[in-house]
Amino acid sequence: MILTVKTKSQTELIDITFEIQQLVSSSGINEGLCILFVPHTTAAVTINENADPSVPADIIMVLNKIVPWEAGYRHLEGNSPAHLKSTLVGVSELIIIENSKLFLGTWQGIFFCEFDGPRTRKLHVRFLPTKYKE
Amino acid sequence: MILTVKTKSQTELIDITFEIQQLVSSSGINEGLCILFVPHTTAAVTINENADPSVPADIIMVLNKIVPWEAGYRHLEGNSPAHLKSTLVGVSELIIIENSKLFLGTWQGIFFCEFDGPRTRKLHVRFLPTKYKE
Amino acid sequence: MILTVKTKSQTELIDITFEIQQLVSSSGINEGLCILFVPHTTAAVTINENADPSVPADIIMVLNKIVPWEAGYRHLEGNSPAHLKSTLVGVSELIIIENSKLFLGTWQGIFFCEFDGPRTRKLHVRFLPTKYKE
Repeated sequence: MILTVKTKSQTELIDITFEIQQLVSSSGINEGLCILFVPHTTAAVTINENADPSVPADIIMVLNKIVPWEAGYRHLEGNSPAHLKSTLVGVSELIIIENSKLFLGTWQGIFFCEFDGPRTRKLHVRFLPTKYKE
Repeated sequence: MILTVKTKSQTELIDITFEIQQLVSSSGINEGLCILFVPHTTAAVTINENADPSVPADIIMVLNKIVPWEAGYRHLEGNSPAHLKSTLVGVSELIIIENSKLFLGTWQGIFFCEFDGPRTRKLHVRFLPTKYKE
Repeated sequence: MILTVKTKSQTELIDITFEIQQLVSSSGINEGLCILFVPHTTAAVTINENADPSVPADIIMVLNKIVPWEAGYRHLEGNSPAHLKSTLVGVSELIIIENSKLFLGTWQGIFFCEFDGPRTRKLHVRFLPTKYKE
């Protein structure tokens, strides 16, 4: 399965929890694992608080502080900071499925992380069911 | 399965290798995968050296240098640095099980990472067996 | 399965995409997951662009900026920065297998990350097949 994500900014965290849960629901899986994989080198996926929108805003702000925009980069495309953020945050996630639901903590949501947008991005989604709905 | 972890400090790396190995042993799994998932947004899980306690101490020290305590954060709870560390370190781990044992390197241990404690935390543990003990 | 990686520098990103694809091909797996696990505490594995060699060079440069070489470390072996980088980048990766191929993005490659070399390293490789070749 592939989820298409249209990003609107250069750097952006987009809450995709609802979309992933919909894919879980329509798959018929009761228990198992959900695997997310970002097939891009300047994007990532993370799990963090999605109740207060200032949390993803702070994540973006600090990632921009940690990874300098100018640092004598050799890569001529000019998006080396985006590659760095992708490696620091990571391109895959693994989430437990229980009772046909993503088994996340109360405050957790899944964010697609755009670091070199705006672009139309893809997210690969796979399920490893250990039990199907009866 | 859920492992309860009681943390005692604001920032702390707690070696949980023994507890996870116990869960593997009592599960009857011979070969497969062990999945760890932290259902919190200000904690994480990592694998690193557990022989010398100065290694987790240095990890905490440098994470505190990388993620500034004061940076004009917008999130009013005041724990934005903890959210950042959670995203940088990651909330899930995947460990191979072989011969009913966590297949870790000689110096590797599993650490629960508390970034906004002290609290009582949970860690979700799942197994994907490819072979059970005969 | 174990892949042996001989590193030649203190800090180095080595493209192992071809070697992992060879293991997938010889395994007979058609669809499933490929799990990579680094059993070392001063190395890691990441996925990023392998078309332009300046991308891994920039990743190394910025990781060296983020994690200071001198910071009053307590760990007496002197390789604390390598332990930090291992925790930030991560010791495991999860890649989807489709049509007997690693299902990576156009620009993605798999890199073994040496942070305390040169050494002879190991990478554990496991497959979770959901379908074998007919």
